[in-house]
Amino acid sequence: MRVLILGGDGYLGWPTAMAFANRNHEVCVVDNYLRRNLARQMDRGPLIDAPKLDDRVDIFKALSSHTISVAIGDCTDSTFLSDLVRRFEPDTIVHYAELPSAPYSMIGPAEARLTFENNLKSTFNVIWAILEHVPACHLIKLGTMGEYGTPNIDIEEGWIDVAHKGRSQRFLYPREAGSLYHTTKILDTDLLWFYVRAYGLRVTDLMQGPVYGLSTAEADLDSRLSPNFHYDDVFGTVVNRFLVQAAAGIPLTVYGAGNQIRGFLNIKDTIQCIELAAATPPAAGELRILNQFTELFSVNQLAAKVQQAARLTGLAVTMQHLPNPRLELEQHYYNAKNTGLIELGMEPNLMTEAVLAEMLQTVLRYRNCIDTAKIMPRVRWGRRQGPPPDVA
Amino acid sequence: MRVLILGGDGYLGWPTAMAFANRNHEVCVVDNYLRRNLARQMDRGPLIDAPKLDDRVDIFKALSSHTISVAIGDCTDSTFLSDLVRRFEPDTIVHYAELPSAPYSMIGPAEARLTFENNLKSTFNVIWAILEHVPACHLIKLGTMGEYGTPNIDIEEGWIDVAHKGRSQRFLYPREAGSLYHTTKILDTDLLWFYVRAYGLRVTDLMQGPVYGLSTAEADLDSRLSPNFHYDDVFGTVVNRFLVQAAAGIPLTVYGAGNQIRGFLNIKDTIQCIELAAATPPAAGELRILNQFTELFSVNQLAAKVQQAARLTGLAVTMQHLPNPRLELEQHYYNAKNTGLIELGMEPNLMTEAVLAEMLQTVLRYRNCIDTAKIMPRVRWGRRQGPPPDVA
Repeated sequence: MRVLILGGDGYLGWPTAMAFANRNHEVCVVDNYLRRNLARQMDRGPLIDAPKLDDRVDIFKALSSHTISVAIGDCTDSTFLSDLVRRFEPDTIVHYAELPSAPYSMIGPAEARLTFENNLKSTFNVIWAILEHVPACHLIKLGTMGEYGTPNIDIEEGWIDVAHKGRSQRFLYPREAGSLYHTTKILDTDLLWFYVRAYGLRVTDLMQGPVYGLSTAEADLDSRLSPNFHYDDVFGTVVNRFLVQAAAGIPLTVYGAGNQIRGFLNIKDTIQCIELAAATPPAAGELRILNQFTELFSVNQLAAKVQQAARLTGLAVTMQHLPNPRLELEQHYYNAKNTGLIELGMEPNLMTEAVLAEMLQTVLRYRNCIDTAKIMPRVRWGRRQGPPPDVA
Repeated sequence: MRVLILGGDGYLGWPTAMAFANRNHEVCVVDNYLRRNLARQMDRGPLIDAPKLDDRVDIFKALSSHTISVAIGDCTDSTFLSDLVRRFEPDTIVHYAELPSAPYSMIGPAEARLTFENNLKSTFNVIWAILEHVPACHLIKLGTMGEYGTPNIDIEEGWIDVAHKGRSQRFLYPREAGSLYHTTKILDTDLLWFYVRAYGLRVTDLMQGPVYGLSTAEADLDSRLSPNFHYDDVFGTVVNRFLVQAAAGIPLTVYGAGNQIRGFLNIKDTIQCIELAAATPPAAGELRILNQFTELFSVNQLAAKVQQAARLTGLAVTMQHLPNPRLELEQHYYNAKNTGLIELGMEPNLMTEAVLAEMLQTVLRYRNCIDTAKIMPRVRWGRRQGPPPDVA
């Protein structure tokens, strides 16, 4: 299979590329280093700095004998992307080429505009590159569980049958997100669904929860092949932040009440999910939507798990509640379905204390590089007067 | 009230501007003549050619003594729009600045891209110009009934309470449109709803059906103040096409079975609706959605009405069914609510035979300018194999 990975420099893009190459697929990674450059400009570099793609490809080849080709360019440039797709003729495109940060998208107009235009244009260009050159290609698009927000009813997998006044209709599950970044993913879904219906595209849209983990079969070959690890207030995730805080001996910062529930998954399971999706493409004209997470935790539960893992490692860790910089419900119903990927054969790697302790050991090796000034939230969502409105 | 009208050269933009000016509001119209230029480039000019804005403003001033200011520029240029909003300080912005053609958006990648980027960027820029300079400004955004598509359940006004497994949640009514153009309006709605929630914008989103008519209180002052009138396959609407076909003595072309139902309204009612919306702004942080049409007709019913009006005028008109170039259901349930604007005080001008006969008289005055080669559909929606899929 020829697999084109857009956003191949990212936390998930690079491990995905190695995994496909290791199974003898022909892999090409594409990136313009936008996230990497923004993080550097904003003094929010990762704890573990990954070499650039050409170097990582060389390191991976020396260790595994597998070749990954690299195209440096911008997926918002339609000519670049169209030419690449025409030449590479992918069977599968994995589209990670989006700015991934909710806080970044909420800094101000310039950051909002960059997130909006980058994410929407890249998706639009991928759609048309496929329609023009490889119409049977399977597009695997990374959405986010954040598209659904926190509705007061069960979250189904992408679709919902609505009964209304004695009649019924199946719809895309209504989406209502908590940041502009997450909203760009809603717009992506609307756009994909239109082109699936109108032109018979075949698309898998994966509604992914926050991913954690540094270990994959291929990343473990050499520390220079590790996924990047951001822990700052803009590009970091809550699991990374807690692990760094535990390693640095400072309190775990919980935003608000900490009862916000999200669906998490291990990076090994992201790779499993992408591989399973690629192996079972949907029909032409089908938009298959799968919810991609393995476990639901509240932020408080997550903090307790990190505390417990730290205890195993001999570290005593406290917890601190901060005013919530985000617009989100801190107490809400949450029951999300995730059976689709299990039915495809996904075998979850759960967030055990051993897994967290192993991540913590890795972070401790980089303890001297931790800059605690990067951690506290500095981006506050738009409307600051009064409490966040109930999104219902 | 200071009213900024984006897309002021359009079929609705210009009559809206005159109506507000005539009620002594301070009005500024903005346009970059994109639709006008595209129509000319594609040899799809209007039957009735409107002077450019500077000339129309002079004609209107001479007749009414009211001044309308003009800003020629592109709303996708954030600096231009931001500067304009900062200087004009509008209380109300009416946002018509979108490419309005479903067929145009379905021609190919270049036309799809222009529609996508023009419409999304203009909406994004309007949002941020308001947030930065006039946060209390009321944004009146033109959506379309086409956002809803043709679901098998009643179409409510913007929102729906979904009961699911014993719980319930109010959502944006799920949208599923039949063209890329209509899909850009869905994306607009998603984006507006996010910024309303996050930053407290005040927005009225009007889900408008196809508009017909050439007569408004101000347009009737002088034929050079008439709204433009496109009848071709790309920029024309079904009512205009039928009237021109009746005037030219050629059959009315019905796409497919002709049982497609849509909600129509007279241009006088568009102006009433905009004025009523402007007079009753929603609260900060409220997205008010109103369905803007007065009557439901099938395409066959519309053809019969035009036939009857033609008969009154002494013309015999036949009907011809064409293979449907669009992706749409030709037989479907349709029950759309439109009580919101009636409750605000809108008094419908219905599509009587007299109204159609009057339009037909106007068209007959331009009979010698009709180019029948412009009428037959030349844009066919993406997937042509087999019948259109059931969008359910």
